[in-house]
Formats: sequence, structure tokens, C-alpha cells
Amino acid sequence: MISSDSPTGPEQRIGSERLIARLRSALGEKAVVTDPDVLDSHRNDEATFCAAGVPAVLVRPGSTAEVAEVLRAAGEYGVPVVTQGARTGLSGAANAIDGCILLSTARMNKVLEISAEDQVAVVQPGVVNADLSHAVGEAGLFYPPDPSSWEMSTVGGNIATNAGGLCCVKYGVTGDFVRGLEVVLASGEVVRTGRRTVKGVAGYDLTRLIVGSEGTLGVVTEATLALLPAPEAALTAAATFLSIEDGIAAAAAVMASGLRPSLLEFLDGPTARAIQNYRDMGLPADVGSLLLAQSDRGPRAAEDVAAIAAICTAHGAVEVAEASDAEESAMLLEARRLVHAALEPLGTTLIDDVAVPRSRLVALLHGIAEIGAKYDVLICCPGHVGDGNMHPTVVFDRDDPAAEARALEAFGAVMNLGLALGGTITGEHGIGKLKRQWLEAELGPVGLRLQREIKSVFDPAGLLNPDKVFL
Amino acid sequence: MISSDSPTGPEQRIGSERLIARLRSALGEKAVVTDPDVLDSHRNDEATFCAAGVPAVLVRPGSTAEVAEVLRAAGEYGVPVVTQGARTGLSGAANAIDGCILLSTARMNKVLEISAEDQVAVVQPGVVNADLSHAVGEAGLFYPPDPSSWEMSTVGGNIATNAGGLCCVKYGVTGDFVRGLEVVLASGEVVRTGRRTVKGVAGYDLTRLIVGSEGTLGVVTEATLALLPAPEAALTAAATFLSIEDGIAAAAAVMASGLRPSLLEFLDGPTARAIQNYRDMGLPADVGSLLLAQSDRGPRAAEDVAAIAAICTAHGAVEVAEASDAEESAMLLEARRLVHAALEPLGTTLIDDVAVPRSRLVALLHGIAEIGAKYDVLICCPGHVGDGNMHPTVVFDRDDPAAEARALEAFGAVMNLGLALGGTITGEHGIGKLKRQWLEAELGPVGLRLQREIKSVFDPAGLLNPDKVFL
Repeated sequence: MISSDSPTGPEQRIGSERLIARLRSALGEKAVVTDPDVLDSHRNDEATFCAAGVPAVLVRPGSTAEVAEVLRAAGEYGVPVVTQGARTGLSGAANAIDGCILLSTARMNKVLEISAEDQVAVVQPGVVNADLSHAVGEAGLFYPPDPSSWEMSTVGGNIATNAGGLCCVKYGVTGDFVRGLEVVLASGEVVRTGRRTVKGVAGYDLTRLIVGSEGTLGVVTEATLALLPAPEAALTAAATFLSIEDGIAAAAAVMASGLRPSLLEFLDGPTARAIQNYRDMGLPADVGSLLLAQSDRGPRAAEDVAAIAAICTAHGAVEVAEASDAEESAMLLEARRLVHAALEPLGTTLIDDVAVPRSRLVALLHGIAEIGAKYDVLICCPGHVGDGNMHPTVVFDRDDPAAEARALEAFGAVMNLGLALGGTITGEHGIGKLKRQWLEAELGPVGLRLQREIKSVFDPAGLLNPDKVFL
Repeated sequence: MISSDSPTGPEQRIGSERLIARLRSALGEKAVVTDPDVLDSHRNDEATFCAAGVPAVLVRPGSTAEVAEVLRAAGEYGVPVVTQGARTGLSGAANAIDGCILLSTARMNKVLEISAEDQVAVVQPGVVNADLSHAVGEAGLFYPPDPSSWEMSTVGGNIATNAGGLCCVKYGVTGDFVRGLEVVLASGEVVRTGRRTVKGVAGYDLTRLIVGSEGTLGVVTEATLALLPAPEAALTAAATFLSIEDGIAAAAAVMASGLRPSLLEFLDGPTARAIQNYRDMGLPADVGSLLLAQSDRGPRAAEDVAAIAAICTAHGAVEVAEASDAEESAMLLEARRLVHAALEPLGTTLIDDVAVPRSRLVALLHGIAEIGAKYDVLICCPGHVGDGNMHPTVVFDRDDPAAEARALEAFGAVMNLGLALGGTITGEHGIGKLKRQWLEAELGPVGLRLQREIKSVFDPAGLLNPDKVFL
């Protein structure tokens, strides 16, 4: 955690005291926290290398009306507001800003409605993804978005980052399941965007504009989410290849086959070896890549998994394992789950999130290896290969300042490489504070200007998460 | 077609002559049309009851650079621009405005790229949906969006209205397949939005903002579209019910079953009877509703269709037909295809496009019957029942001014009913000119203000389709 000075001049302090008094009167004593230890524990999300400021106060509103009160107070005192869910984000979007109000959605954590007939859920932003998933599962329904953080992260945070996950290769990302939103604007006004219906084209799509806006356009206080009928049981296949090329070619062939796997994950050689060193998974020392695939079509999953296995064999897999039940499937997925644990002993990790067209994945992986060699850092590359969305992870010794500097340079080089290959600097983690200096390279000056002007429409005074997304 | 005066003062005429000379010098003689007969034939789209102005000129630019020239010239002369595809829209969004430049995308009709590996197509806006669909089909791929106009309408027009269609019950709407756009802004600047990759969250989603914006934010000059592997052969089932309730309950049960039909269409009693009167389809005189369903899962379609048939029988269907091949499937779908032909002899039709949560469909249909009785007009109600998106069609005698007035009142009453049931005034046709006075009721004053301000960001002088969407 990188510290920075808090505003301590007498004027700011008096303003801050008045603001806090006002917040206490609006929200009640317990919902307004100034304990320095609590504030300190709420300064950061999970991003590495992201400076965080010192907040003035943490508020936990319990209703839309209270959120509106907070934003009106912030507007009157000219104080920035940073909205926080579970702070599991990886780009620093939820990091505190000096003197800011941290607005936690933790108390607004109710599932307000689950409708089987309309296949929608209406939820408050602070509901944890896993709690929603379990609740809709009990109703025989399915909320697909499953970021890795799903057991901790909130739906509001998922919406703010348009979070992806493992199953989006088949089902799409968070935004594909957001029908409508209730949003409190910087002015304190409440607006409802979108709809409860499946389709709707009345006016511009403000819902999609809010999704992925990382707390810079408003505070989401309610979301109407699309659900699907519950998927059937899933089975998994795992294939080991001696090269990157074979694994990528097999993944491309699976995607072209029409099989629609519900998960298609890739681990490159360095990642697979780290896992093998961490726990014996029986992977060969010369493993070039590992492919994990899943079908969730119940009685037909075995047939899908067999077809995927055959494709992998045809593309040079040296070993292919097909699960025949849930337990074996879990064992095969274990390698994917162990990535973070396996990399942790090797050093500090800096996780990137580039996505490229699938046709450029081999070029991306070779380029990443070259960048690792050039900057003398280890870069492991697991990823959601079906979507072309990779997580090149720079591993380095944080106690060595020279290594840290090289890691940061490698991190930037990977994003530049992604852009050069027709890709994006972020597939699912967002810009936050971490990637602001690369945004213009992706959007271009005109696109960036439009985005800033849209920000001004929603937040003329620039108080909503002001030093995020844009430099 | 309702006429209105064109600007004919001497100043406007000289300004107009200079503008046309400038356009001719930029685009070449042939691409700039002032022939009054040609202009007149391009004043309207397919909307009923939508006034259209008299355009100053029709231009057919052949490139992004030429589109930019047109918009720069329009900006300098302060002349509105109405972009037109195939003018198959149903809300008047493509109708001319007095003195405007009609910008036809007809010459920009190339499929620039089809990539099987990346499962994308890159196209110009004037490509006809059917031409694209056939081209990607030859590559073993699938572009799902299939508005009823698909054999004539352009992809640019589909994007401008976020067009739906029959298969969106399984695959989603046009916007779900738009990855990235090239757009010329009112300033003549060219911006690229979105991406070629499957996922991407860098900045606000300007692509989705442009999709459905009905030519009011910019001119789309290129689109990168997501494709799917080709679907397998489809089979159809048709079920006849004696009541609305049974048909709607069966549709809800199909959607809840997890079967994912690739088409689920509903015809109410009046529509079914009009079809039976037009051509003998063997429907009983007391038909209450008709349900048509399709599965496109090839070898498994027969099993799906049997399951759908069983659901219909369990919900009171008095007759269920299951196709066993493509020919029988086409015969069963004939009823859906005959809707417009069957209603035409009955009078002029005014087609609405409300969508409601599926749980409110019975209430919608009963309410529509009441509205028909109250205003003494026939309202037939076919629709995309799986999406809750109905097309209540007011049928009346246009030679009877009193009937026309009652039809318009009924049309408005249907939209108010849709809103009262938690729905939207437009599921897939757009606001255009036809529904502007209902937009605020759906969006609310704050939402509408945000939308207007976003419009101003893209088009500060208000020259892009200025009297559309907003009043």
C-alpha cells in the first residue's frame, strides 16, 4: 500500500467535520465511520501497484434515499466519492482518494425479487455474487457471471467493472445480464435505466453506459438481472500439449466446432510448471500448454467432452483426461484453481488482462515470452483462451527495486503488445487507476474526448471517483 | 405520406445550391441526386402516420472519407442530415426533414472481411442483412439477427434501430453481435468504438450507445460483428389453443424448461382467424391462440420439438403438429409469414411494438382487447412471445377519418398499457418520429435529460436526424 498525504489544513478539517456531522444526521451514527483503522483497511482494492489516498470518512448507506443524501452532501462540500463493493477489483478503481467519502454498498445486500416466470432477479448492489447465485439456483435458475472473485465480490462491483469470468465463453459477461439499473447521479437525482423486459430500444442504452463505468458516472442502487434456466451437470476435459501452438490451435478448433464449451481455460508452460512444482499434478516437465474445457449439458456433456478430447488429440495433445463425474471434473479443474497459490511463493504478482482476437493468441504468447526475456522477469500466462482474454502475470521480487521497475516496464509492454495485435488493454478487469496511461492509445483522442464529455454530463463537478479511468 | 412545405426562400435556395455544388465536388456528380422524383421516393421509411419533409438532396457517399465530407459540409451550412439504409424501418426514423441531406449508405455495401478463426465479420453499413447472412453461411458461420425485413434491410439500419427478429429469443438482438464500430461524428471526425475481441472493458461502452441511436449520434461507416458457428437444421412445432391464457402459459412453460427454442412466436385469435380467412390453414373457428416454436439443434431438434409439443399438450393445446423435416417446418411457419398479407385486405395497419415482462402477457392481451372494444377498432396481436415483445396491430379504414382518429388513440392506449404493465413502448422498432411523445413517460424526466445531453456531446449543433427520438 502506497501512502499519500491527507488534507490536514484547518479549513479542510472544519469542512470535513461539518460534512461528517451532516452524514451522521442523514444516515445515523453507525453508518458513518471515521475510525482510522477501519478507514485504513478500506483504502485499497486488490490491485498491485496502485496508490491509494486517505479517506475522510466511510459511509454505509442502507437505501437509495441515503445514497442520494450522501451524494448531495458530497456535492455541497465538493468532496469526491469512491463507491466500494467488496474491494476485490484488480485495477484500483475502488482505491480511496485523499479526503474522499468511501461509499460502501455492504448494507444494501438484499435480493429483492427472483421471478421464475420473467427469469429476472432484482437485487441491491451489495449482494455477493455467490449469495445471488445460490438464491437463484434454489429457484431452478442460473445467474451465469462468475468472476474468479465470485464468492466475495458484489454484484454492484461486478456491474461497475463489467466483470467476466470462466463461463462467459458460453454465456457472456456481466453486462449481458443487466437489464435495468437504478442509479443515483452526482446531483443526488435518482434515474432508472433500461427495463425488466427481455428487449427494449426506447432511447439510448444508458444501462450499458453505466455497466463498466467503474463508479465514475453514478452509484448503482438496484439492478434488474436476466437469469437463465439452471444448467445441467458439467463434465471436464484436460489436455496437455508440448507447445503453445498446439494448445492454442486445439482451443481454436474447439471454438470453431460449434460445441459451445461452458469453460475453456489455458495455462501456458511456465504456469503449468509452477503448478506442478507446487503440487504434483502429473504434468510432464516439458509441458508446453494445458487446456481445460467443460460442457454443462448434463446427459450430453460426456459426448461433448469426448468430442473436445478428440479435437485435442488431433491437435497433438500428449495426454487427454476426460472426467466421468463431478469429482473427476473438480480434480481436473484443480490446476486452474491453483494458479494463484502456485505463483505466490515465486514472488509478487502483477496481473495483466489483455485480450486479443483468437487468431493472434500465438503471437501474443510468443511476444510475452520475448518481453519476459527482455526485462528479465518471469511472465506466466493463464487465460480465458476461448475469449482470447489472457492474464499475463509478471512475477518478481518486490524487495528488489530494480526487479520491480523491470516488472512494471514488462507490464506496460504486454499492454502495448496487446494493442499492436488488435486487442484491448483490459478484457474484464477495467482501467481503474492502474491502466489510465494506456487508455488513450486504445481509444484514440476523439474517443477519449467523447468519453470525458459523457462523464461531464453525469458528473459535472467531477466528484465521482475522479482520478480513475481518465488521467 | 403527409407532405410539408420545403424551404423555398431565396437565401435558402442559394445556400442549398452552394451546398449541392460543394457535395458534387467532394463526392462526384453521380453520388449527389437532386431529381425531385428520386428525392420524393426517398422521403419515407415504412412507418404509417409519420410526416416526412422534403429533402434538399440525396447523397450516396462511397467511403468513410466521403461521409466525413458530407457531415462537414452539413455542419458548415447548418443543414440537417438523415441517414438512410433500406428505409424498411417502422418508426419514421429515416424520414426526410425539410431541407435535409439524405445520406444513403447504399453504395457502402461491402463485406470487408469474414474471419472464421476470430468469428467476426467486418462490413460496411449498406450491406443487406441477407447478403451478409449468406456470405457468412458459406463460410460455415452464422449471423443471427433476423428482423422480418432481413432480405431488404441493411446492417447499418439494423444497428441504428438495434433490430430484433425471430431468432433473438435464443440468440439476442443486433446489439449483442456488434463488437466495434467506425462512426463519423457530426464534426466530420472519425471515431472507432469497441473492439474486435470477444471481451473488452476499456472505457465507457460507446458501441452500445451508438447501437439503437437511430442516426442521431453519428453515421456508422463500418461494423465489426460477432458470428457464431453455423446452427444445425431446424424443426418446427405448431400448437393451437382455445384461449389466450393457454397459449401464453404454454409459451412461459417452454421458456422455463431450458429447451432454448430458436423461435417462439404467438398469434392471437383475431390474427389466427384473419389468416384462416385468407388461406385455409385448418384452424378452428374458435381458435384462441397459436404458438409456433422451432429448435435448430439438428439431430436433437426432433427431441426438442417433441418436448415442446408435450408442454403445449399439457397446457391445453387442442392440436399440436410436429414437423419431421424442413418442408413441414416451412408449412407450419407459413401462418406467421402470412400475417401481413392476411391483415392487408382488412384495412390499413398501424403496427405497435410493446414489450412486457412475460408474466404480464395475459394482462397485456386482455387489455388490448378492451382497448379495441373501447375505440371500436380491430387489434390483432402477433408477437415474439418468448421475449414478451408483441406487435399489436390496429386495423382500420383509412378512408374514414373518424376510424383513423380512433386507431391513433388505440395505438397510444396500447403503449400506455405496456408501460403500466412494467414494459416498454418499443421492443425492437425504435422511437423514430412515431413514438416521441411517449418517450418521457418511459424514461422519466431525468433519464430524458441525460439522453439529450449525450446527444449534445455527439452533435452539439443538433444536425443529425434532429426531429427524431426526442420531441
